[in-house]
Formats: sequence, structure tokens, C-alpha cells
Amino acid sequence: MSRGRLESFSDGVMAVAATLLVLNIVVPSLKHGETLIHALLAQWPQYAAYVVSFLTIGIIWINHHAAISRLREADRTILSLNLLLLMTIAVLPFATALFATYLREGHGQKLAAGVYAGSFLLMSLAFTALNRHILRQKAHLLGEQLPVERLRQIEALSIAGLAPYAIATAIAAVSPYATLIICAAVAVYYATPFGSGG
Amino acid sequence: MSRGRLESFSDGVMAVAATLLVLNIVVPSLKHGETLIHALLAQWPQYAAYVVSFLTIGIIWINHHAAISRLREADRTILSLNLLLLMTIAVLPFATALFATYLREGHGQKLAAGVYAGSFLLMSLAFTALNRHILRQKAHLLGEQLPVERLRQIEALSIAGLAPYAIATAIAAVSPYATLIICAAVAVYYATPFGSGG
Amino acid sequence: MSRGRLESFSDGVMAVAATLLVLNIVVPSLKHGETLIHALLAQWPQYAAYVVSFLTIGIIWINHHAAISRLREADRTILSLNLLLLMTIAVLPFATALFATYLREGHGQKLAAGVYAGSFLLMSLAFTALNRHILRQKAHLLGEQLPVERLRQIEALSIAGLAPYAIATAIAAVSPYATLIICAAVAVYYATPFGSGG
Amino acid sequence: MSRGRLESFSDGVMAVAATLLVLNIVVPSLKHGETLIHALLAQWPQYAAYVVSFLTIGIIWINHHAAISRLREADRTILSLNLLLLMTIAVLPFATALFATYLREGHGQKLAAGVYAGSFLLMSLAFTALNRHILRQKAHLLGEQLPVERLRQIEALSIAGLAPYAIATAIAAVSPYATLIICAAVAVYYATPFGSGG
Repeated sequence: MSRGRLESFSDGVMAVAATLLVLNIVVPSLKHGETLIHALLAQWPQYAAYVVSFLTIGIIWINHHAAISRLREADRTILSLNLLLLMTIAVLPFATALFATYLREGHGQKLAAGVYAGSFLLMSLAFTALNRHILRQKAHLLGEQLPVERLRQIEALSIAGLAPYAIATAIAAVSPYATLIICAAVAVYYATPFGSGG
Repeated sequence: MSRGRLESFSDGVMAVAATLLVLNIVVPSLKHGETLIHALLAQWPQYAAYVVSFLTIGIIWINHHAAISRLREADRTILSLNLLLLMTIAVLPFATALFATYLREGHGQKLAAGVYAGSFLLMSLAFTALNRHILRQKAHLLGEQLPVERLRQIEALSIAGLAPYAIATAIAAVSPYATLIICAAVAVYYATPFGSGG
Repeated sequence: MSRGRLESFSDGVMAVAATLLVLNIVVPSLKHGETLIHALLAQWPQYAAYVVSFLTIGIIWINHHAAISRLREADRTILSLNLLLLMTIAVLPFATALFATYLREGHGQKLAAGVYAGSFLLMSLAFTALNRHILRQKAHLLGEQLPVERLRQIEALSIAGLAPYAIATAIAAVSPYATLIICAAVAVYYATPFGSGG
Repeated sequence: MSRGRLESFSDGVMAVAATLLVLNIVVPSLKHGETLIHALLAQWPQYAAYVVSFLTIGIIWINHHAAISRLREADRTILSLNLLLLMTIAVLPFATALFATYLREGHGQKLAAGVYAGSFLLMSLAFTALNRHILRQKAHLLGEQLPVERLRQIEALSIAGLAPYAIATAIAAVSPYATLIICAAVAVYYATPFGSGG
């Protein structure tokens, strides 16, 4: 399969998933005596989760582009791994909604945070598998063969990218807010020009 | 019509349909005394249906690409058949939601399973019709003429792909779980590099 | 503006609008004693409206392609008219939902049918305006200058396409079912290879 | 990163955000004795907000194209600023729904109007930052270097575009209807061929 159409479908899924996130931010209906400003401020987890998830999808899109741009053509395994990656991205609106809904509840907030960071971890694992497979392609599928050192460096960066999400998932059992802070830090770091790599 | 724009619209519809599937996975609101883990586990049919439908749309996208890539230009019949195919794909979020909702209900689970597998069957029929028409194009529309044997092989594969969905639809009258297992098996088989063809 | 990106945004809006139509088909929740088959059959207006609207968006996409493909570059007026057209297309999921909801109600069914066909009429008017403007472009924007006769023929076809929707809108005051039949007939006629033109 | 894929993802997000706006226009359920025409007319803020927001996204898309088309390649800062811009665009369906819901309420209408115009202001700020960065690129990233005068003119136009939204945001504290009128005037002005620039 040509690279172009692989990108077109992938861009579509990622763009839709990112834009569907906004459906989780609902227009509040005021309870008796409540003011709109109070109701809007009370749903800050929805805004925080929106920003973190949107940036995270944006980053995976940038990384996806970098990975795919190395290809000349896609073989069947790449299509399969790419589909798996997209499936983990498309589920993020649900994980985001779950996290935002339960962050301030008495029950379930730790589990919801674990599911949230766990979804990012799953997505990163799927990306690492895709990227690893692409980098090990034979020359005829690759646009250019990378030197072995650069290759190892990219793989190390890719695996290092898993660590924060693993920590954020584990720490959810202690503090869902810590999970949010870690995921937010990763999103802001990589979404700014400083956190480039790979 | 040029191939490029046919692909762009088709990719859009398939990407959106696949990503809309996540809207069927709802954030549970806990009943008195219920825990979140229990509520999340209880909606496993939503996750199963999400995975099966997402992979199935992914597979039809791969097959669609393979079929369309044979064309140099699209005539009016191809546009019509393609539109029909897209219409059957875009309805999958509904069929998926119906199936996931009723799978564990006392009433209607067999009908819901039949509608689910029946939607896949309909989609496969539409694809088979499109693929068949493309393969029988005259040379000026095709990028390259396939040898007759290869052509028959592709058509046979395409028709063979209908069988599991026909069985899954019929078996819904007996067991909706059997329907789920067949649809899941087809999705996993074709979504992995082993189930390639055509 | 280059043609490519005009098409990419337009294809996006049309693909999303077409795919959002499925959100109008809701999973029924059964009332006491009701069976799923009955509940599903009772919402046939939702399926009918889905098919008619999906095909209609598909047809406008085909016509849009034919119109835009004549351009070499898009000027500012084309961007404005195109935006207007897309705005009328993107509103169709609402008009479709309104029609499907009220078709079998005692109240409002005529108005809902009028809004539905009226939306198609508005969309066709926007398309006619866009197409007319494109056809009258100076040579430097057009890929090729059409002979005057062919130009008049296309414009006549384009205006003739308005008539059924005008009739369907007017007849809504008498019978919403007649509106549905006319809109369905137009959709099926143009979506099949027989109803080609322009 | 190549320009093509930057455009493809951006077009996707903008097309989806524009098309999701329609979900804010809900099919009214009639209260006892209410007629459909009355119920439909009563939700005119939903239609007004739909038109204003759709046109505004359309304008930002046109401006985005003009800005990006100057690039030969995108560096990391452009990706970051573009992602920021897309995040402010994707949030518009929420801001639009909030404004339309509260415009005619006794409480919260001023805040909702402020959030609405404030979202447009934020989006314009993000665009101005992106555009400014692009215009100051070194020659190797730009397709062609603009003369300094033209560059200043574009930047002035871009900043001038912020003023109406700043005024609309401030005036929300006095009259939400004034906010609507200003935002609508901006949308109509720039969406027509007269309001071109930059």
C-alpha cells in the first residue's frame, strides 16, 4: 500500500478522535441557586482532560508522521500495527470522559485515572511496536536506511517515552491528581518545541 | 472522476465511522452501592463490539484501497457502488450499539446479533459488487489488466469472505455469543498479517 | 487557493456530515411488553431518512467534484460560495433528525417535512450558485474553457435539479410522505448510473 | 514535516469541528399545547450561533491555508503553534453550545457570551502567533521571501483582526446580543469576497 493513503486514513482517525474530545465538555444545567460561573469552574477536570488528551493525540500524530515518512511502501504487518495504534487512539475520548467524570468523585477516581493513563500507555506501546517494525524494514520498503546508532537512539527514545505513562498508571492507585500532573507534563513537554526527538 | 478524490471521501467516511464507534462506550453512572470496576466490567460487550467493529472497518478500508488502487479513473457505476458501500459502513456505529446494548438483555439479543452480523454481510456484499465491477473494467480505466486466473482467484476470495458473515447472521437465531465469536475471529484473522489476500 | 486543499476541506465536511447521520438512528429502549423487532420496525422513518440523506450528500459530493475539477485555482468568491454550500450540507443531520422524528407524529409533521426538503432546496441553490460562478470564470482560472452550448446545458441541468426539491418542499403542506417519496426518488435516480449529468 | 500532512490533519480537525456544530441544534420535543413552529423558532439562538461559528471556522481555514501555503517545510515550533490553534478551534462546538443555550436565559447569559467571543479571541491569538512565526521564517523554510512592507501589512491585518473579538468579549458584560452581532458581522464580512486580506 502506498504511504499516502495510509496517512490519509490515519490522519482522519486522529483528527476525528481529537475533535470528538470536545463532546465531553458539556453545557452545565444550573441547579437551583447555582451560578453559571460556579458550574463552569466546577467542571475544570473536563477542560484539563481535554487539553491533555488533545495535545497527546497531537504528539502521537507528529510521531506517527515521523515514523511513516521513513517508509516508501507499507507491508501488511505495518497496516496491522497501524490499525492497532489507531484503535487505541480512537478509544481516548472514552478514557478522557471517564477520567474527567470521576476525578472529583468519592468513588472510582483511582480506577478512572488508571484507565486514563493506561490508555496512553497502551497507545504508546502500539506506537513503539509500529515504529520498531518500520525501523527494521528492509531497504526496499524504506526511503533511506538509517545508521545503526541513530536507529538505536530512536528506539531508546521511543521506549523512554513509555516510562512516564507506566508511572502515571501505577501512581493512580495512590493519587489520581498525580496521574493528571504527569500526563499533563508529558503533553506540554512534547507539544512544545523543547521536547522534540525521534 | 480521479482516483484521488474518491479515496479522500471514502477514507473520510471510514475514518469517521470507525472513530464514532467510541461514542457507544458510555461512562457508567453508578447505582447505589455499585463500584466503578463492577460497572466497567459489566459493559464488556461495548468493548468487544468496539474492537470487532473497529477492526472490521479497518479491514474493509485495506480491501477498499487494494480494489481502488487498480483503477486509473472511476466511472459512474463505480461511484454509485462505492457510495452504497460507504452507506453500509456508516451505519455500523448503530448496529454495533444495538448489539452491545442487547447482548446481555433477556429480550431481543438474537435479533440484535442478527442485525449486527447482517450489517457486516451487507457491507461485504456491497464490497464484492464494487470489487467485481472494478475487476471487469475495460483496460482504459484500469491501471493494469490482471490475468484471468488471478482475477478469478480474487473474486473467489472476495465471495469466500461472505461466508463467515452469512453463518454469523444465521447462527444469531441460536446464540448471539456465537455470532460475536465468529465476527471477532474474522476481524482478528484479517487484521493480522496472516489473513492477507486479494 | 489551490484546488487540492479546497477539495480536502470540502470532502472532510461532506464525509463527516454523511457519517453523523447515523447518530439519528438510536438504539430503542423497550417499553413494557414491547419486542425489539417491533421497536426497530417502528423507527423506519429513521432508516428511510438516513438512506435518502446519505445518498443526497453522496450525490452533491459527486457534483461538487465535477464542478471543482474544472478549476485550476479558486478565487475568493469561490471560497465564499463553497463555504455557504458546506454550511447547508452540514446542517442536514439536524434536518434529517427533525423529519424522522416528526414524520409519524400527529403534530408538526408537515413543517418537519418542509424543513427537510427545504434544506435540500437550499443546498441545491448554493450548489447552483457555486457551479454557475465556476462556469463563468475567465480562462486563467479554468482548466479548460467549455463551449457555450455545453455550458448552457450544464446550467440547465443544474437548475432542473432544483425543481424536484421545490415541489417536495411545497407538497409538504399536503403530505409529508409525498415529500419523502420525491426526495427518495431524486436520491435513487442520481445515485445510480442512469441519473448522470453535468 | 512536509506541508501536505500538516494540512491534512489540520483540515480534518477544522472540518470535523465545523460539522460537529450541528449537534448543538437539537430536535425539540413539544411541551403540551406547543406547536413545532413555535418550538423551532424559539431556538433561533442555536441557528444564529451555528451560522456564526461555521463561517468563523471557515474563515480561519482560509487564513490557515494562506499562512501555511507560504511554507516549504514545517519546523517543530510551527507544529506546536498549529496544534495550539487546532485545540482552540476544536473547542468551539462547546463554546457555541454554551452561548446558544444561555443567550435567552435569565442567568449566565453575559458569561456565556464572554466565553463565546473569548474563544474566538483565543483562536485568533493562536493564529496570529502561528502566522507571525511563519512570516519570520528563514528563507530555506519559506517558499518565497516576502518584501518587508508586505510582511508588515499582513501582520497589521492579522492583529487588526483581533480587535473585534476583544471588543465582543468585553461588551458581553453589557449585552450578549451585542456580542452576537459583532461576531456575526465579522463572520459575514470575512466570509464574503469583500473582506479579503492577508
